[in-house]
Amino acid sequence: MQLLEDMILKYGKVRGGNVLKVDGFLNHRLDTALICELGQEFCKLFEKEGITKVLTVESSGIAIAYATAEKLKVPLVFAKKTMSSNISDEVYKVPVHSYTHNNDYMMLMTKAYITSDDIVLLVDDFLANGCALGGLIGICEAAGAKIAGIGVAIEKGFQGGGDLLRQQGYRVESLAVIDKMDENTLEFRANCK
Amino acid sequence: MQLLEDMILKYGKVRGGNVLKVDGFLNHRLDTALICELGQEFCKLFEKEGITKVLTVESSGIAIAYATAEKLKVPLVFAKKTMSSNISDEVYKVPVHSYTHNNDYMMLMTKAYITSDDIVLLVDDFLANGCALGGLIGICEAAGAKIAGIGVAIEKGFQGGGDLLRQQGYRVESLAVIDKMDENTLEFRANCK
Repeated sequence: MQLLEDMILKYGKVRGGNVLKVDGFLNHRLDTALICELGQEFCKLFEKEGITKVLTVESSGIAIAYATAEKLKVPLVFAKKTMSSNISDEVYKVPVHSYTHNNDYMMLMTKAYITSDDIVLLVDDFLANGCALGGLIGICEAAGAKIAGIGVAIEKGFQGGGDLLRQQGYRVESLAVIDKMDENTLEFRANCK
Repeated sequence: MQLLEDMILKYGKVRGGNVLKVDGFLNHRLDTALICELGQEFCKLFEKEGITKVLTVESSGIAIAYATAEKLKVPLVFAKKTMSSNISDEVYKVPVHSYTHNNDYMMLMTKAYITSDDIVLLVDDFLANGCALGGLIGICEAAGAKIAGIGVAIEKGFQGGGDLLRQQGYRVESLAVIDKMDENTLEFRANCK
């Protein structure tokens, strides 16, 4: 997606440890017009799939996933990383490793909100190693829900998680795929949406 | 707001410890049409205030805050609860107590994203004791930003945080204010939007 690639080139900052900082427009300060466009694009890509729910995990993907779900006119559900008095005991629990935060956590989802009747679109802001998406896939598998596809804003292609998911048969639509990244270079994969 | 009050009466569940579970439509599974209406309502209430940014804290208020910011055509910024490789060292840090999670945490905001030029609308899903909003106010004070008002979906009026903020001079607009709540009763404050 040209708009997203332009924003990454203009405002993204490459840091050590394969970190691409896009907190100026995507996941800390959010350019709401851009997020709206991302949601519109995912809607266009998946609107014929009979999606019944959009699923993400807190918290940096929530706005994009909401924008997508709102356009698709379906509910958004987001998995949680901590128990609280607001979620019940009847939850799916899937262990996940986070490279961003360098920790392990349990991804939690109330069982009633994803069921075997659902056709789910997974949405997140980033796809690197695929750990967070692996957790969301685990929730859908536990629930017996069908996964229609995966929509990601920025895929760090050189970390391999996206291509692994494609090899596993998932339809992964990333709006910008970065195949090479260092302090001087930022190369996008051609032909992505 | 009649629509929100109806949803609370239909789907909300009162639990011990002053907990109102609305995770079926507001903060775990999200009714996107409702969230969109809440954003529209906050936009209508504050559109003449010259808002430059909407500010919330991760994660359950993000969707409502995004819907509001998108309607107001301004950026959304959300404070974080944990450091990660995605945020810089130049952050405001405000200590906050969470009754929901029964813990203390540091609310973090990159300094560049809220400045003394900003006129800020604070948005959150819940207002009970006002601790989270106190943290957001602390960030705005540290940045020298002006607070135009506070938009909250559900205020638990009987916990007093909202009225305390009003006494301090803040314009607090809650779309549903609950003044009494137990297993048999749920009473809304009259004349709220």
